[in-house]
Amino acid sequence: MKLYCYWRSQAAFRVRMALNLKGIEVENVILDLMKGDQFTDEYRKVNPQMVVPALVTDDGLTLYQSLAIIEYLDETHPNPPLLPADARGRARVRSLAQIVACEAHPLIVPRIRNYLEHELKQDEPTRMKWIQHWLTVALAALEGRLTREPETGRYAHGDKLTLADLCITQQVVSAKIFNCDIKPYPAAVRIFDECMKLDAIARAHPLKQPDAPKHH
Amino acid sequence: MKLYCYWRSQAAFRVRMALNLKGIEVENVILDLMKGDQFTDEYRKVNPQMVVPALVTDDGLTLYQSLAIIEYLDETHPNPPLLPADARGRARVRSLAQIVACEAHPLIVPRIRNYLEHELKQDEPTRMKWIQHWLTVALAALEGRLTREPETGRYAHGDKLTLADLCITQQVVSAKIFNCDIKPYPAAVRIFDECMKLDAIARAHPLKQPDAPKHH
Repeated sequence: MKLYCYWRSQAAFRVRMALNLKGIEVENVILDLMKGDQFTDEYRKVNPQMVVPALVTDDGLTLYQSLAIIEYLDETHPNPPLLPADARGRARVRSLAQIVACEAHPLIVPRIRNYLEHELKQDEPTRMKWIQHWLTVALAALEGRLTREPETGRYAHGDKLTLADLCITQQVVSAKIFNCDIKPYPAAVRIFDECMKLDAIARAHPLKQPDAPKHH
Repeated sequence: MKLYCYWRSQAAFRVRMALNLKGIEVENVILDLMKGDQFTDEYRKVNPQMVVPALVTDDGLTLYQSLAIIEYLDETHPNPPLLPADARGRARVRSLAQIVACEAHPLIVPRIRNYLEHELKQDEPTRMKWIQHWLTVALAALEGRLTREPETGRYAHGDKLTLADLCITQQVVSAKIFNCDIKPYPAAVRIFDECMKLDAIARAHPLKQPDAPKHH
């Protein structure tokens, strides 16, 4: 399989965690989104939407959208499972994941920051405040559910790692990258810490990617 | 079951279509989001995130996030199915749905429009341009895939209605509400027209809800 990715893409990070956990080897095709590699004719043929990630399977199927990709991987490579066996559990895990993927992440991606800068003429501190605001709103939503719902265990849903943990880990990484105050969200941070103990997740971290900047 | 909803909520609209298609009767609990009904202590106990929709099942399970709710309904009430039987098909349908739910819709919800107005002091035409811009970007993404991918049929994925059609229908309704030019997206509009022929979908339309304004 080929994964089209960029070190800092948070959606690619989610997919990379799932691939590593399932022991699926992929060829990484790195696009430098800052240089506009996603707009080449070559990549446009892979993904006309010109965003990452895209995953191309060995039989030539191209998959889009990180949550859809992860569910496909979970269905075709069921071990270890990333969704609970029961419908209630799956609904809970998906809804936690969607707080990240459908509420927080879409608001902070480069195209939004570009629009704020170039169309709305917002300065850098205002753009940073926007990012921190929406990341924090989603962290608060996650924290509220994680602390209130009895299903929370060692991980977000009991003691087995799920899709929800991948999204929570990604959310905490985003919050750290953008210097959010994460102290008010100890349940989310605890899950992040727990996940980072797993090599499959730790080596999927954006800063561990070959195209990441070497010094921070 | 109880569905907490508001006539104009596009996420509630998606869930309502699924409920109608599956013939599931629910009690609608209408919150007037413009009056702040979502912030009452009573609703906060149902959904601490204070957003709609939330679906409470007869055995007291509360479900959040429209796509997670629809997948739960599909798993527990499998007829008619809203996802294809094969993993490839499910991946395609979910990824089309996520263009709407994870890319377009999060950018135009009231909290974003409020932030643009009150925090960023953007005037009404600028806010409208923002909404139209992101709705149109997503419509273009859908159109590109619907016209390019051979799986597109009478509906978005072959000739059977799926979750993708519910999201495309919702997206076209949003685009119409906000006066987007939808002429460049005939494939998406054709699917919307096809879906609106179904009574289960037509009567789920926001303007058909009891709390919708009577005259337009």
